[in-house]
Amino acid sequence: MTSDLKVNGFKAAAVRSGIRGKDRLDMGLIVCECSAAAAGVFTTSRVKAAPVLLDIERLASGRARAVLVNSGIANACSGEAGMAAAVAAGRLAADGLGIDQREVLVSSTGVIGEQLDLACFEKGVPELIRSLSADGLTEVSRAIMTTDTVPKTAVRHVEVDGKPVKLAGLAKGAGMIKPDMATMLAFIMTDAAVEPACLRTMLRAGCERSFNRITVDGDTSTNDSAIILANGLAANRPLTGSSEGSAEFGRALNDLLKDLALQIVRDGEGATKLVTVRVTGARSDAEARQAAETVANSNLVKTAFFGEDANWGRIIAALGRSGAEFDQYKVDIAFDDALLVADGLGLGRGAEAAATGVLRNKEFSVNIDLKNGEGLYACYTCDFSLDYVRINADYRS
Amino acid sequence: MTSDLKVNGFKAAAVRSGIRGKDRLDMGLIVCECSAAAAGVFTTSRVKAAPVLLDIERLASGRARAVLVNSGIANACSGEAGMAAAVAAGRLAADGLGIDQREVLVSSTGVIGEQLDLACFEKGVPELIRSLSADGLTEVSRAIMTTDTVPKTAVRHVEVDGKPVKLAGLAKGAGMIKPDMATMLAFIMTDAAVEPACLRTMLRAGCERSFNRITVDGDTSTNDSAIILANGLAANRPLTGSSEGSAEFGRALNDLLKDLALQIVRDGEGATKLVTVRVTGARSDAEARQAAETVANSNLVKTAFFGEDANWGRIIAALGRSGAEFDQYKVDIAFDDALLVADGLGLGRGAEAAATGVLRNKEFSVNIDLKNGEGLYACYTCDFSLDYVRINADYRS
Repeated sequence: MTSDLKVNGFKAAAVRSGIRGKDRLDMGLIVCECSAAAAGVFTTSRVKAAPVLLDIERLASGRARAVLVNSGIANACSGEAGMAAAVAAGRLAADGLGIDQREVLVSSTGVIGEQLDLACFEKGVPELIRSLSADGLTEVSRAIMTTDTVPKTAVRHVEVDGKPVKLAGLAKGAGMIKPDMATMLAFIMTDAAVEPACLRTMLRAGCERSFNRITVDGDTSTNDSAIILANGLAANRPLTGSSEGSAEFGRALNDLLKDLALQIVRDGEGATKLVTVRVTGARSDAEARQAAETVANSNLVKTAFFGEDANWGRIIAALGRSGAEFDQYKVDIAFDDALLVADGLGLGRGAEAAATGVLRNKEFSVNIDLKNGEGLYACYTCDFSLDYVRINADYRS
Repeated sequence: MTSDLKVNGFKAAAVRSGIRGKDRLDMGLIVCECSAAAAGVFTTSRVKAAPVLLDIERLASGRARAVLVNSGIANACSGEAGMAAAVAAGRLAADGLGIDQREVLVSSTGVIGEQLDLACFEKGVPELIRSLSADGLTEVSRAIMTTDTVPKTAVRHVEVDGKPVKLAGLAKGAGMIKPDMATMLAFIMTDAAVEPACLRTMLRAGCERSFNRITVDGDTSTNDSAIILANGLAANRPLTGSSEGSAEFGRALNDLLKDLALQIVRDGEGATKLVTVRVTGARSDAEARQAAETVANSNLVKTAFFGEDANWGRIIAALGRSGAEFDQYKVDIAFDDALLVADGLGLGRGAEAAATGVLRNKEFSVNIDLKNGEGLYACYTCDFSLDYVRINADYRS
């Protein structure tokens, strides 16, 4: 796995800085040997963590060289002291690396409302800089884990303008996950040459089809960030959107982002199942989205998945309150290919037994046809288990 | 308790009809000795159960004499057969009582998507009619329970136009509860004389401040119904809204409805705590409502309540995604009187310890001041426990 994540021109490292005690990796650094085109997509919450506000400001330039990240404390709701800590932590990395602090991005994830201790960065950052290596991204993927049970990484190769290009991504997130940026951090490194404006457009479009389509618990965080750095060492002519290879690169990026997003749902707090909720036949894509997201976020639907109970009444009840317009006696519902409801009526015990068989799988889809138009949408959710409550009744202690 | 629920002119009974097996009360009948003014408020879901559709139609007249109710099967998503069963069940009661079937309302609660067996009504309705008594409302409150652990009843006395008037109410509901009509049935009987149009207005206003302000799990049902019958035997001059005594009657009705609503939240599936979420200082009441409901429905906030963890970061994260406008560094948050966050910043370990003390209570309030205007709103929620998942992963089996 380690060698897989290497991307030409990038080095990385992770250390135990002390934020989360002595024994846990909790700080990481990703550095590019040259200035890279850079873009970010951030939480839509009105309450944004200090590092999010700082990165939004710094990414206006479209360029960056390093990302310093910590877990344990979110540096959110931390006021002027929190912003000062974010700036100071970034400056420590910039000074150590001999680069402009405006080219250092910072990310944090963890508990809201606590202050970062700069001493951890004074200890951790020099260690990080000494340990930088081409193999380091795997360690960073571990250092950013909070309630995650597994690190999340993905790699894609694509040819652009006759040149081989690589993308490597790492992500964290397991709870506080829902559409419009989940509680998650994702970092994507590529050696492609991409114009900053084009990179921003492609990242936003890719997030729209990946991280913005997943839900674990319907909550959104103050720290959600997806950041991409493209250093251009592949030496393709810089992608502009309309240039040759843009479509291929965009597809590879979308595919990588979706891969990471589904890893997050699979590792959802307490999750035992990955469920695709697909709505077709809505009056519009927007109504299909309302319908799909209401089903995907329904606690009653999700606990029924956990119980492997083909309780389609809960699905149709969620559709009924979603705001989408439809005739209840036209709705079809299938689990994978097992049709359970036709024209709003259950198909009886045989169909239900087949659908229950599908629910026993680790991954399946719920396919809903409203038969009221051409609108469609798909999103991804997990089941809702006893462990979700155990984890979240006890997260801070 | 039994004698408490008696209202002049009303009789009731409950039986084991067989819908839920031999041993459970599952059918009830409430009958008024004369035609009563009647009004109802029903689910806003696009997917409405057959009895809801039938009652909406019948209540256009503003009058009714009986309510026939069953638990076990919701008669929702049941198509033409379901509507035929609702009509036939009502007709059995009408014929047995010798009244017009258009004056019989029907209600159902239970599993969606299954058909009622009319044989249960052919057996149950004659038994119900034989057993009618002035003491019967208590038994009806038991017959409508599903995942409820306790029956829910309330009584109010008020003087109207110099006459003593009584209101008695019964309700069910524990899961699939959220604002805009919870999964619940409520029946209110009164001997007041009230014009039907006035009764409708008062019921709607009262539901807005009670059943529409509670949430257990953010789900809404296909069957939610609140029905009031006012038989006029108290012989006050009929209330018209502007008439003397209308305000007093309205207050008593609101108070009774809120009492029933809070009983539902206290008995929320798996709930161990009743929490009032109160938002002040929003730009408008509508934004205060958005903010309060987002906090009240957040799984992360509710699991923290269950864990008695004063994790205010989850509250501010919920506010941040609620859509309400505010400056995060102006927000105050208190649990009862224990101020925990001032101007968006935590007040430290001492304040958190005091707030944690409040969380150990069975009932407390979360008071949020956004300091951005005059808008305010309060709603009621419960914590989210392991038992919620246990109950709902297993409801049908």
